[in-house]
Amino acid sequence: MKKRSLTLGLLACSAGLALAQPQPTKQTPESTEVWEPVPRVVTPGNLSPSTASGMTAPSDAIVLFDGKNLDSWVSAKDGSAAKWTVGDGAMTVAKGAGDVRTKQEFEDYQLHIEFRTPAQVEGTGQGRGNSGIFMQGRYELQVLDSYNNRTYSNGQAGSIYKQSMPMVNVSRKPGEWQTYDVIYTAPRFNKDGQMLFPPYITVIHNGVIVQNHTAIRGTTPYVGLPMVQPHGKGPIQLQDHNNPTSYRNIWIREI
Amino acid sequence: MKKRSLTLGLLACSAGLALAQPQPTKQTPESTEVWEPVPRVVTPGNLSPSTASGMTAPSDAIVLFDGKNLDSWVSAKDGSAAKWTVGDGAMTVAKGAGDVRTKQEFEDYQLHIEFRTPAQVEGTGQGRGNSGIFMQGRYELQVLDSYNNRTYSNGQAGSIYKQSMPMVNVSRKPGEWQTYDVIYTAPRFNKDGQMLFPPYITVIHNGVIVQNHTAIRGTTPYVGLPMVQPHGKGPIQLQDHNNPTSYRNIWIREI
Amino acid sequence: MKKRSLTLGLLACSAGLALAQPQPTKQTPESTEVWEPVPRVVTPGNLSPSTASGMTAPSDAIVLFDGKNLDSWVSAKDGSAAKWTVGDGAMTVAKGAGDVRTKQEFEDYQLHIEFRTPAQVEGTGQGRGNSGIFMQGRYELQVLDSYNNRTYSNGQAGSIYKQSMPMVNVSRKPGEWQTYDVIYTAPRFNKDGQMLFPPYITVIHNGVIVQNHTAIRGTTPYVGLPMVQPHGKGPIQLQDHNNPTSYRNIWIREI
Amino acid sequence: MKKRSLTLGLLACSAGLALAQPQPTKQTPESTEVWEPVPRVVTPGNLSPSTASGMTAPSDAIVLFDGKNLDSWVSAKDGSAAKWTVGDGAMTVAKGAGDVRTKQEFEDYQLHIEFRTPAQVEGTGQGRGNSGIFMQGRYELQVLDSYNNRTYSNGQAGSIYKQSMPMVNVSRKPGEWQTYDVIYTAPRFNKDGQMLFPPYITVIHNGVIVQNHTAIRGTTPYVGLPMVQPHGKGPIQLQDHNNPTSYRNIWIREI
Repeated sequence: MKKRSLTLGLLACSAGLALAQPQPTKQTPESTEVWEPVPRVVTPGNLSPSTASGMTAPSDAIVLFDGKNLDSWVSAKDGSAAKWTVGDGAMTVAKGAGDVRTKQEFEDYQLHIEFRTPAQVEGTGQGRGNSGIFMQGRYELQVLDSYNNRTYSNGQAGSIYKQSMPMVNVSRKPGEWQTYDVIYTAPRFNKDGQMLFPPYITVIHNGVIVQNHTAIRGTTPYVGLPMVQPHGKGPIQLQDHNNPTSYRNIWIREI
Repeated sequence: MKKRSLTLGLLACSAGLALAQPQPTKQTPESTEVWEPVPRVVTPGNLSPSTASGMTAPSDAIVLFDGKNLDSWVSAKDGSAAKWTVGDGAMTVAKGAGDVRTKQEFEDYQLHIEFRTPAQVEGTGQGRGNSGIFMQGRYELQVLDSYNNRTYSNGQAGSIYKQSMPMVNVSRKPGEWQTYDVIYTAPRFNKDGQMLFPPYITVIHNGVIVQNHTAIRGTTPYVGLPMVQPHGKGPIQLQDHNNPTSYRNIWIREI
Repeated sequence: MKKRSLTLGLLACSAGLALAQPQPTKQTPESTEVWEPVPRVVTPGNLSPSTASGMTAPSDAIVLFDGKNLDSWVSAKDGSAAKWTVGDGAMTVAKGAGDVRTKQEFEDYQLHIEFRTPAQVEGTGQGRGNSGIFMQGRYELQVLDSYNNRTYSNGQAGSIYKQSMPMVNVSRKPGEWQTYDVIYTAPRFNKDGQMLFPPYITVIHNGVIVQNHTAIRGTTPYVGLPMVQPHGKGPIQLQDHNNPTSYRNIWIREI
Repeated sequence: MKKRSLTLGLLACSAGLALAQPQPTKQTPESTEVWEPVPRVVTPGNLSPSTASGMTAPSDAIVLFDGKNLDSWVSAKDGSAAKWTVGDGAMTVAKGAGDVRTKQEFEDYQLHIEFRTPAQVEGTGQGRGNSGIFMQGRYELQVLDSYNNRTYSNGQAGSIYKQSMPMVNVSRKPGEWQTYDVIYTAPRFNKDGQMLFPPYITVIHNGVIVQNHTAIRGTTPYVGLPMVQPHGKGPIQLQDHNNPTSYRNIWIREI
């Protein structure tokens, strides 16, 4: 036991140890994959809510992307100008551009966002149309091409990444626009850095409920367990996962 | 005190006393009205989710009304044929027809329903476009023409009637189609007839969240406090409140 | 309708109108009484948790009353010295002394408190051993002699006053010490002054659960419906209801 | 991908695959250990609630162990007679006896249970005074000697094993009696076998809250992630982990 304590002590010094630090060794990406059950497939209605052309945001919404420019966004890495491609009313992951995040930060909100995975399918599993939407820059609602594309259930479209699989798989075909309507309330922390209230998220995917007031347990890493790290307001962040996934018609209402 | 006990005893005998019986005297309709605050007004997007023509239900939905007939509905009063008017793809309250309810009963579900209050405005307050959607035949999501029409806040459109006012007022104009997207989980009762879990309801009105995982405390009477009465599955019930309010495109998914 | 608006306007001017203002007329104390069902009676274990002599608080607790003085308390009315009687290790409501509250204010906590209603029974119903413990100075956990003393169910010992009756009636006899163990998390409000999270309260009365994660809907007035009023931290407040009810061994842990 | 599907298919056939089956490979016990943060230490009051001699259960409780015999218990393995040792008012893990469970099954309840880890300390970490209390035979509230005994935080006394660490460490010394007061509501499943409501658990350890309405995510295995498996009522089960841990004064109230 002595050896372990020493190791932990060193880690704490060198890494500015966060509050919820899972054991650093022994974790692999596969450790946190859940493959069963496979959420059953539901075909959404033939006109997705809010994807009809001409839809506009409610009057109290902050429009985060209206199809024209990236004025509300910066590089998540360093705050420099966002380098995603803008065209055809969409913003699209550009090669090497990295994640982008909103300049503005949020706490509790309703978010509407539309996404499209590439019409030309390349790759399989997590390699196909992969992106993600991070609540407060930390908690990922997975974006993936999950149309006839098996992967771990807690990593498919509509999942809270590696935490909570969607109730059903209601993905549209590659190249079609899809919607997420999200209601999110931020966590509240106590003086010990614990989540007194976890974040709660409700997600409607293409008009169908896939997360109903789901409690988020912490961060959503690729390797390791969720970590609890106290924080205040945070941005909406969109992931560059090397696939040219697109977004459009993004608006948010503080609630 | 002796007098009160006697009164209660008699009532219990004659009325088959329900579990949560508020004091029978002294209640007026006004006792349970809440007039302040007034939810702020939000104008919904200019194309409401799912009201575009041609939208269809998800593949696992039970279509309760497709615009053609009332085959899924009966009179709530006696189970006889539903007598509402069907035309122009809508079902409309008919004079003296009474409430209607689905033949099928439900427990936990996602419900999509569209409604339209009369284009020709008559009456004020609760007298204008009044109707309602009862979850499991018991818990009313209020339908009302709340466009520039002041009434008690916990009785306007989007409220859980006399329990929970909507977060905002996102009503469309009289004569326009509006949407409710509802996620509902039924209560569970213990052996004492208490709600171990209350019903929870999330309501999105014209694309905007107005009830976020709201706990329903009991029935939603016009006079008196909510009552807790154990029950099993129940129907969707639509109210005849003497106003020719219309409904269309009604579907439900068991979750 | 014009008349009503006028009335409301005047009220708003004169009273510094709070956010959730029920209709001012038509409310009587009886309007919010719920008499049925009557929670079944449970006899607690013959040694109540934590009433054994010599029990002390956990090491991280703030002791609010240790039997010796009222140093942690002031008059709730004006902040002057608390005038309750101290003796025999207890603090007792003194004639005309009014409510007392802690100097310190709290948000989320575990509270242990012991109370004793008068051994010599006088009065009936709400007139017998009446007092109360206000969370954050606003939300009353009722204290009453509910041993063979019928009153409205949502006003008996263990109730959240006029909101939530206790699951069972586990009251001890008049003159015996009783315990409340409370876990409480404070409400969080949004910019519209709405409760984004309501207060949640769990109450164990004489070792038996009587409120299990109950959501509190607003203030707990004698007349009228619960009101929602945004606030920050608040004190523990004890009610003077003209009955010489006593308290002892009060401690609190911030969680 | 073909290879993986084959593997999964074979597993499904041979093992009667449960609903939530994590990927079978790559999991180690360490994968689900969380070592940080370390819950801060709280010393409980010097007389633990309900451990004073002579305490009895509330009148509506089912006494599961009164110090005299194992009439309410059987072997969890095969339903044969429970072989734990009874003496000095306690029941103690006997060498090779295996887990024991109650004959009666439960759904929603309040549970009081007292435990004592061996006065003579042997072993370290998980090897010291290890046992556990399974809600409905599935969800483990960890029992361990966590007095100056470092282990992973989500595996110490008061944790929901490998899911939720306790808010604080309020363990007593080895050989001293400790209490758990538990309020538990069972999960409810939908037709897809998903948890519509998760189990919720509140745990008070030696009079101090350590789990406040914690949602349990599934089973609590030593290796692998929580699994969701629909079930009905279930027993209280006590673990034989090769340490002579003792229990006494066990009662339960259905709520």
